[in-house]
Amino acid sequence: MTRVELFENIKKKKSFLCIGLDTDLTKIPAHLLLEEDPAFEFNKQIIDATHDLCVSYKPNMAFYETEGVKGWISLEKTINYINEKYPDQFTIADAKRGDIGNTSSMYAKAFLEKMNFDSITVAPYMGEDSVMPFLEYPNKWVILLALTSNKGAFDFQTTLNGNNEALYKQVLETSKKWGNADNLMYVVGATKAEMLTEIRSIVPDNFLLVPGVGAQGGSLNEVAKYGMNDQCGLLVNSSRGIIYAGNGKDFALKARAEALILQQEMQLLLLDAKLTKLFGE
Amino acid sequence: MTRVELFENIKKKKSFLCIGLDTDLTKIPAHLLLEEDPAFEFNKQIIDATHDLCVSYKPNMAFYETEGVKGWISLEKTINYINEKYPDQFTIADAKRGDIGNTSSMYAKAFLEKMNFDSITVAPYMGEDSVMPFLEYPNKWVILLALTSNKGAFDFQTTLNGNNEALYKQVLETSKKWGNADNLMYVVGATKAEMLTEIRSIVPDNFLLVPGVGAQGGSLNEVAKYGMNDQCGLLVNSSRGIIYAGNGKDFALKARAEALILQQEMQLLLLDAKLTKLFGE
Repeated sequence: MTRVELFENIKKKKSFLCIGLDTDLTKIPAHLLLEEDPAFEFNKQIIDATHDLCVSYKPNMAFYETEGVKGWISLEKTINYINEKYPDQFTIADAKRGDIGNTSSMYAKAFLEKMNFDSITVAPYMGEDSVMPFLEYPNKWVILLALTSNKGAFDFQTTLNGNNEALYKQVLETSKKWGNADNLMYVVGATKAEMLTEIRSIVPDNFLLVPGVGAQGGSLNEVAKYGMNDQCGLLVNSSRGIIYAGNGKDFALKARAEALILQQEMQLLLLDAKLTKLFGE
Repeated sequence: MTRVELFENIKKKKSFLCIGLDTDLTKIPAHLLLEEDPAFEFNKQIIDATHDLCVSYKPNMAFYETEGVKGWISLEKTINYINEKYPDQFTIADAKRGDIGNTSSMYAKAFLEKMNFDSITVAPYMGEDSVMPFLEYPNKWVILLALTSNKGAFDFQTTLNGNNEALYKQVLETSKKWGNADNLMYVVGATKAEMLTEIRSIVPDNFLLVPGVGAQGGSLNEVAKYGMNDQCGLLVNSSRGIIYAGNGKDFALKARAEALILQQEMQLLLLDAKLTKLFGE
């Protein structure tokens, strides 16, 4: 998917919501456990109930790998289902991979080619040659970790270097030479929304994937205030707050209700922002 | 596996060799492609031919994930085969995972519990709460990335902070409070063997997993000179140099020949070092 297409979808749906498919068999409604593939059945119903309210789905690999071969089958069925039925969804393999070049090439092939995700989250620690293999696929995206939403983000990411620059800013500065706003996004945690101002000064045009709204405590208003650019430039993720909103047979409707609240907030934020006039096109 | 058991195996086999199972279907001998599970058949023959010369096997997840469900089946068969037939091998899931706490817990369950690997490689970028879930398993190990063997290691890992300390040293200093020499090892690239002196001053007792000997150009003598401690403290990995030594029906014998060369060098290094007398026990 190109950046233009993603922005068109955001305008069409009046939403920059990404729904995280952190599908945990110990948390999904009990009646689904009788299905042949409970994780896929859960995902399918969540997706069918929310697809018009969001522009992106983000399955988190850990939740599938923990079920071994069965989990991998659920994952492949999920991405195939989205790609076939809702091809306008921007799909993110939340994998946080990154290894030496020939190994990153293998991961890139797995996620961007064979499973045909639009993007993959990548960890920056191993530097340029660990990231470049993912950038070689046309119209595919790297979403590089910059400033994450967890407590441990302050262990290394905010350490100041000799130039008084935090590591996450060095990651932004250095990596923007590897790609551009058409193939490189960044993970920026919502729990530090005020930091978005400085981040935007370094990467004004790149999309930011913002986790941590909802269960992790970030504020959507703050994120939009400091992070939105003239092509929106934001994908805000919510996982648990949406997909585990209900635990009965109506879980998908409950998930839709939560997604709708976020979409409605996003619609207002998009209208309030300088993007307003774009809706008049 | 405990540290004592690992050291006993090193003494018994006179080897600190780890063999990387980077099993690539485009590189294995053509006759194996007729097998039902070529990757597993390749691994099985490599393992049977080399197990007495090494103390550790390290399947690299990327090479299995790139084959999807089939690859995951090959991986599970491989780890089960090693655990059943050669339980004295220290098994490493080379996965370079790391995510927020609840997600890292899922990865830990996948690799350390369900597949029962002894250890997993973990990326440090997301800090303490991304690493701790892996340390909760008794007699299991985190192998944390410190200084990797690729060119990109110099993008961020060697950046000096305000205290004039390279990031990889900060990772060592900070992370050694999270675990200890009985559950925490570090990845240190062999291409910078002289840096091992400083690394040893920070983590004198921890085992170091050293990739990059062979295909990536590191020297085994240098690694032993600067990195060995009184319990050996080293696992030196070779992947492509061993497993792709041959490409015919005798590929496993060729792999054994390459592994033997490294084991023999390691035996001399262990005898030369202060570990000599330990062999007299």
